[in-house]
Amino acid sequence: MNAGQRIELALSNALDTPEAAATPPLLNRAMHHAVFPGGARVRPRLTLATAFACGKPESDLALAAGAAIELLHCASLVHDDMPCFDNADTRRGRASVHKLFGEPLALLAGDGLIVLAFDIIARAAARPGQGQKGAAVLSIVAQAVGSIHGIVAGQAWECEPAVDVAHYHRAKTGALFAGATAAGAAAVGAEPGRWRGLGSKLGEAYQVADDLADALGDAAEIGKPCQQDVANGRPNAVRELGVEGAVARLKGLTEEAIAAIPDCQGRDELEAIIRGQAKRLVPAQIAAQEFRVA
Amino acid sequence: MNAGQRIELALSNALDTPEAAATPPLLNRAMHHAVFPGGARVRPRLTLATAFACGKPESDLALAAGAAIELLHCASLVHDDMPCFDNADTRRGRASVHKLFGEPLALLAGDGLIVLAFDIIARAAARPGQGQKGAAVLSIVAQAVGSIHGIVAGQAWECEPAVDVAHYHRAKTGALFAGATAAGAAAVGAEPGRWRGLGSKLGEAYQVADDLADALGDAAEIGKPCQQDVANGRPNAVRELGVEGAVARLKGLTEEAIAAIPDCQGRDELEAIIRGQAKRLVPAQIAAQEFRVA
Repeated sequence: MNAGQRIELALSNALDTPEAAATPPLLNRAMHHAVFPGGARVRPRLTLATAFACGKPESDLALAAGAAIELLHCASLVHDDMPCFDNADTRRGRASVHKLFGEPLALLAGDGLIVLAFDIIARAAARPGQGQKGAAVLSIVAQAVGSIHGIVAGQAWECEPAVDVAHYHRAKTGALFAGATAAGAAAVGAEPGRWRGLGSKLGEAYQVADDLADALGDAAEIGKPCQQDVANGRPNAVRELGVEGAVARLKGLTEEAIAAIPDCQGRDELEAIIRGQAKRLVPAQIAAQEFRVA
Repeated sequence: MNAGQRIELALSNALDTPEAAATPPLLNRAMHHAVFPGGARVRPRLTLATAFACGKPESDLALAAGAAIELLHCASLVHDDMPCFDNADTRRGRASVHKLFGEPLALLAGDGLIVLAFDIIARAAARPGQGQKGAAVLSIVAQAVGSIHGIVAGQAWECEPAVDVAHYHRAKTGALFAGATAAGAAAVGAEPGRWRGLGSKLGEAYQVADDLADALGDAAEIGKPCQQDVANGRPNAVRELGVEGAVARLKGLTEEAIAAIPDCQGRDELEAIIRGQAKRLVPAQIAAQEFRVA
């Protein structure tokens, strides 16, 4: 089974336990709609790639951490799409959760996914010998989505009268990428702090790519509304740097990410994975014209 | 320090770490508004009382579990009060979070409190020798608030066309009470399953008391809008049993709870605590007229 298949299976196993048949049916459907079919699953791939690079390709705790991070990412999209934030009708080319199931179930689906995320890490941590590593992974993941430096903080900076843009992006996007690499390391007993730089740089690259997609993409291709940053008065790299500047920044960040990979057994494979993922980040129309990532 | 003081200190410590100074200021205020000043803190008291009854009055993990449960309870109130659910303008005698800070920050404050709750359990679990017990506590707490049998499920049953009332109450209120006792036991290495019955019965009693307060109370006294169950078409014990019937049921459930206390070192003290708490559950006007709990 490759990494993508392991991630999909872990997500299915998380949502479709025999016990989960007792979930209120509409809530159950709303939670599935939020998670399946997914996007590129880039964060859990990064968690597994980190564990792999540390020499532990089969860690159940790393897989649980990756799946949890993806569930938290999906939860944040559901809540972000709601009318009181972006009021987005579409996501991944389909109706957003609140559009299909209504606001109450969207709010609850997000809450339910947050809780489920922590539960699946706790279950993996309950296995013999995994308790201490599990506790470390849990804290890393909690802080990556939390109210101080995590996703919740990032979203909340949008509600403040004055925002530091770099700080905003670090919290809203960067923190979960940095958490994805750090959690992958902690899950296999490696030092998580050494792995944050790689995740942070990839998070920044991903944010620039998202800004490019928002500014240039068409909604049908990227599966969600475009031009939302301008519409919602949010910072966007294309507005600040222009298209060429943003593309150059994306390229530079990819190289910085690769330079930030710590010494480890699987450095070369990890570099290849990152270059492969980076190619996917460039909007198709630009990639076709002028831009090649390595 | 008594139990109430320990709980308030644990909640303050959870929200006011030195790191938390970096929280977006409005979000920080919204989260504090949701937690302080609190209600009776009945769930964390139950967690500590259970750990105490098991012979471990000083467990940091039990204290973390209790504080986490209280944060999750507060988060659920913030989300329940939002316009898409109860649209309640007041809570604990003050403006509700969304009324004071707006819907986006109310949504985020709830999310942030959910994440913080799991983080404080993870931090306590990271201490030497606490990893396995911490993982067990985390799963118990996650399931008590989750989408299958927990608070999220309970709230979601309100969105279904057909609802089993007992099932609804068990999820919406009973699960967190059962989780409070089970987590207190698991935190100190006792068998959590034996302690669920006590928590469930107290949760049922608390629900009946809440129904009485909703039907009879005045908003100024209970600090939130009354007659909400009728207004929102929700089941209510007073509608089903009448006032006298509901009061008798509350009394009966308190006795059933006491009968459900497992054999343990501190049985007598726990019984006294429960009888003391039960007195607080009866709306003042009824207690003055006719009803005495033991």
